[in-house]
Amino acid sequence: MPKKLNILMFSGEYDKALAALILANTARDMDVDVTMFFAFWGLCLLRSDDKMNMDGKSFYEKLFSVMTPKGPEELPLSKMNFSGIGKAMMLEMMEDGEAPKLIDFLNGARKNGVKFYSCKLSMEIMGIDKKELIPEVEVMTAQQYLEDALGADMQLFI
Amino acid sequence: MPKKLNILMFSGEYDKALAALILANTARDMDVDVTMFFAFWGLCLLRSDDKMNMDGKSFYEKLFSVMTPKGPEELPLSKMNFSGIGKAMMLEMMEDGEAPKLIDFLNGARKNGVKFYSCKLSMEIMGIDKKELIPEVEVMTAQQYLEDALGADMQLFI
Amino acid sequence: MPKKLNILMFSGEYDKALAALILANTARDMDVDVTMFFAFWGLCLLRSDDKMNMDGKSFYEKLFSVMTPKGPEELPLSKMNFSGIGKAMMLEMMEDGEAPKLIDFLNGARKNGVKFYSCKLSMEIMGIDKKELIPEVEVMTAQQYLEDALGADMQLFI
Repeated sequence: MPKKLNILMFSGEYDKALAALILANTARDMDVDVTMFFAFWGLCLLRSDDKMNMDGKSFYEKLFSVMTPKGPEELPLSKMNFSGIGKAMMLEMMEDGEAPKLIDFLNGARKNGVKFYSCKLSMEIMGIDKKELIPEVEVMTAQQYLEDALGADMQLFI
Repeated sequence: MPKKLNILMFSGEYDKALAALILANTARDMDVDVTMFFAFWGLCLLRSDDKMNMDGKSFYEKLFSVMTPKGPEELPLSKMNFSGIGKAMMLEMMEDGEAPKLIDFLNGARKNGVKFYSCKLSMEIMGIDKKELIPEVEVMTAQQYLEDALGADMQLFI
Repeated sequence: MPKKLNILMFSGEYDKALAALILANTARDMDVDVTMFFAFWGLCLLRSDDKMNMDGKSFYEKLFSVMTPKGPEELPLSKMNFSGIGKAMMLEMMEDGEAPKLIDFLNGARKNGVKFYSCKLSMEIMGIDKKELIPEVEVMTAQQYLEDALGADMQLFI
């Protein structure tokens, strides 16, 4: 039986998402089952600019929607972001080291069979609609997340 | 035998505490045993304004006591707090979505049998007295935390 | 067979590193096997001022090397750092409470047999050379980390 890794992706930061997706892709290469459950700021990673949808959103939800990052490449660094300068530096260093970008790791994870789940309650609070996220995401409750996580060999809160 | 969830609550932020307490309450609904061990900033969640006690505190401990959040509703957001504006927005969105507040989740966890432990060493360093925390908290050493966590099915550092 | 604790040290902050190293040392006292895998900002904890080496670094790597903390005592607090004032206050409180410093916990962990691993990819991206880190560190891939972590009784992402 394959081992199971469960990641709760709470943070919406470039470097933390990079760490999570590198682990997810590596685990899939080792035939480990991988579940990623996106909640709160982590949902920003699954958004994209061209899918933003304002229909039915309240004033605060609209404001929030505009102010938060839309997709992987818009995420800030967790440290030394310096209004984007630190992040630009990090991206240069990644390019110099021939490391793929965050979006490449995200697309790799989608192709390699990482299971993507999004937190129902977070989506309700933030007013995010399923159509605004990447298509393979399934909406899940906290209970469904816990059932999956309690049966995994390893759980990380990132 | 029931499954066991162990959460080390290190952060003192509204959104992270919300995530932790939603998981704790949901796990209790599923008859999972839940231990929450509060350390460092996480202790702020268990304080309350009317229990602040300055007796026997050093100058730094007093200053620290006044500057740090006293109880769940005083915690800032981990992102986009904007001196409280972002948090007020988040609270409006939660109210619109008819989601309970952090303090409701905390009181739910207290009623539903989540075990609350606080870190002895953190309390000593920060000069926090047991009387300043919610009454059901038990003081625990790092060793006692590890014994509990190593026997759990799932551990999260939040 | 001894229990196993695996910590992924991602953050480069004084308080989080303190929490991780207190757990690591306490676990060793209980004869628990401990692996710490240092990635991204966590690598700053293993650096030291006198080992900084600019040879072969790109412009960005040099800049990065100078701007990031070099060793445990240079790490900032994750909250209330206030350009170092909050941290100085925390250090005073630790001294008053007769708690050891972060560097003492690090040296304790080195002496007590905590296994130190550093993330190969992070070192490549950030341009950090093995010679710049404490000598007992072994360089490891994400796959080697996952193999160790999946076999542990408990994993934390800090």
